[in-house]
Amino acid sequence: MFNNILIIGCGLIGSSVLRGSFAKKISKNIFVHEKSKKNISVIKKINKKTKFLNKLDGHISKMDLIILCTHMSQYSSIIKKLQKFTSFKNIITDTSSTKSNIVNLINRNKKINDIFIPSHPIAGSEVSGPKHGNKNLFKNKWCIILKNKNKIKLKKVENFWNKLGSKVIFMNAVEHDKIFSITSHLPHLIAYNLVKTAIDFQKKTKKNVIKYSAGGLRDFSRTAASNEIMWRDIFFSNKDNIIQSINIFLKNLNNFKKLINKKNDKDIIKILKSSKKVRKQIIDLKQDISKPNFGRDIF
Amino acid sequence: MFNNILIIGCGLIGSSVLRGSFAKKISKNIFVHEKSKKNISVIKKINKKTKFLNKLDGHISKMDLIILCTHMSQYSSIIKKLQKFTSFKNIITDTSSTKSNIVNLINRNKKINDIFIPSHPIAGSEVSGPKHGNKNLFKNKWCIILKNKNKIKLKKVENFWNKLGSKVIFMNAVEHDKIFSITSHLPHLIAYNLVKTAIDFQKKTKKNVIKYSAGGLRDFSRTAASNEIMWRDIFFSNKDNIIQSINIFLKNLNNFKKLINKKNDKDIIKILKSSKKVRKQIIDLKQDISKPNFGRDIF
Repeated sequence: MFNNILIIGCGLIGSSVLRGSFAKKISKNIFVHEKSKKNISVIKKINKKTKFLNKLDGHISKMDLIILCTHMSQYSSIIKKLQKFTSFKNIITDTSSTKSNIVNLINRNKKINDIFIPSHPIAGSEVSGPKHGNKNLFKNKWCIILKNKNKIKLKKVENFWNKLGSKVIFMNAVEHDKIFSITSHLPHLIAYNLVKTAIDFQKKTKKNVIKYSAGGLRDFSRTAASNEIMWRDIFFSNKDNIIQSINIFLKNLNNFKKLINKKNDKDIIKILKSSKKVRKQIIDLKQDISKPNFGRDIF
Repeated sequence: MFNNILIIGCGLIGSSVLRGSFAKKISKNIFVHEKSKKNISVIKKINKKTKFLNKLDGHISKMDLIILCTHMSQYSSIIKKLQKFTSFKNIITDTSSTKSNIVNLINRNKKINDIFIPSHPIAGSEVSGPKHGNKNLFKNKWCIILKNKNKIKLKKVENFWNKLGSKVIFMNAVEHDKIFSITSHLPHLIAYNLVKTAIDFQKKTKKNVIKYSAGGLRDFSRTAASNEIMWRDIFFSNKDNIIQSINIFLKNLNNFKKLINKKNDKDIIKILKSSKKVRKQIIDLKQDISKPNFGRDIF
């Protein structure tokens, strides 16, 4: 499919791209550019054929596809380095969770803009680092690719994610950032906020509430254990959409509080029942498995 | 251990008590009182030795232990029936998620109050009904039993939950309701509120956001698929504590919004990092498993 591909940043996502690319024989040569020595020693054990590019230098020009898998806050300095050695022959794609900021960043640089097809595989976990990567991480998951006039480059990026098992959807950055502010960014923010609330409550009441977290808090704490640099970057880069989502959430929560206070039976039941319907849709759309959660495997 | 026990209400929790009681040979005879014909046909398949008590009548007097596993909103009418046939020889316990309301209810009735030892096994799932029950549902889970002056009856209830595998903790109702308002009731309410927010957003923007729920919303939707009668009962009966918890949550969320708006790097990172620490504590305290969540089993 390719002669040379380069993965920049090889944590959970990068190492999953690496594993998947080897498994699907996506490229003759697979290069990795990774700063962390600890990560490099893990990556070396994944596949001995992995080639390392210590510096983003002249070798860049030979890369058919470059996949950015770093935190978004590193994109700017990476792009500065890449522009020195890339030409129209190269393709760049990425894996970041917000897209308007990436579009704004590459729009400033015509050379980069002409070869950069942003993408976002909807896959990940609360754990970080290359040891948790998996060749099947992207299998049957959506991958959003931003619409682009260059159909040839677009097709190559589409084929790449298809090979890794993703189901590709094309969107524009504005639409993407709106949708994921509600399905991904707000849920993470709420999870962080709930754990913060439990910490505050524990300090205030001097009761060990964490000890009794199996009753619900545990599930949120998993989401809230996600990488802090990644999520800070997302919250800041999709600020306006996230604040709008928070505002709808706040309005609903204030209403919920009122309904509880008034013991409004009818309206509460309506809200609780509507959630159940959504759950069914989510399972029908294969966005989650239907297996019930008992907190531990009890069977 | 007992000659006769009676399980009133045989859904997820009741049928798990039933299964566990048979597995651990807790009683010579196990009686079930269940209204739903659909549930009864499921229960009959669990164990042929199950005895059914169609009416709460004179047979009640022979029951060594009666375990209430219905929705809390049914307690009042059940207790009215039980008081006719119970004496100091019987013991009643229960499984409800809030306890001050139960204490208030039984306090009005000296006869019942003398034999009722409220308990709350911290176990459950988003699914309902006897087909989802499991003999190991309570294994290694906390069971909170309310402190009681009657040490003999208390010990019997403690032994019962121990036999089913629970780790017993004694508390008073006020303490219980405070702790679980934050570790269980608020998380469920927040999950319902988040799904409601996604529904509102979908209606407003006419974008199919549910389709992309794998990025975080899916986990909340599972929690928000829990039984609506059970959760309405909990929200209403623990109203004051839950409203206090909502208020702390609201204060934190408004602050979070401000920090994002100002792009306050330092304070955001501090919040996100503190959640990670709590997650570690939760796993160390065996309140959840450490296995990462990738949404589907990918291995």
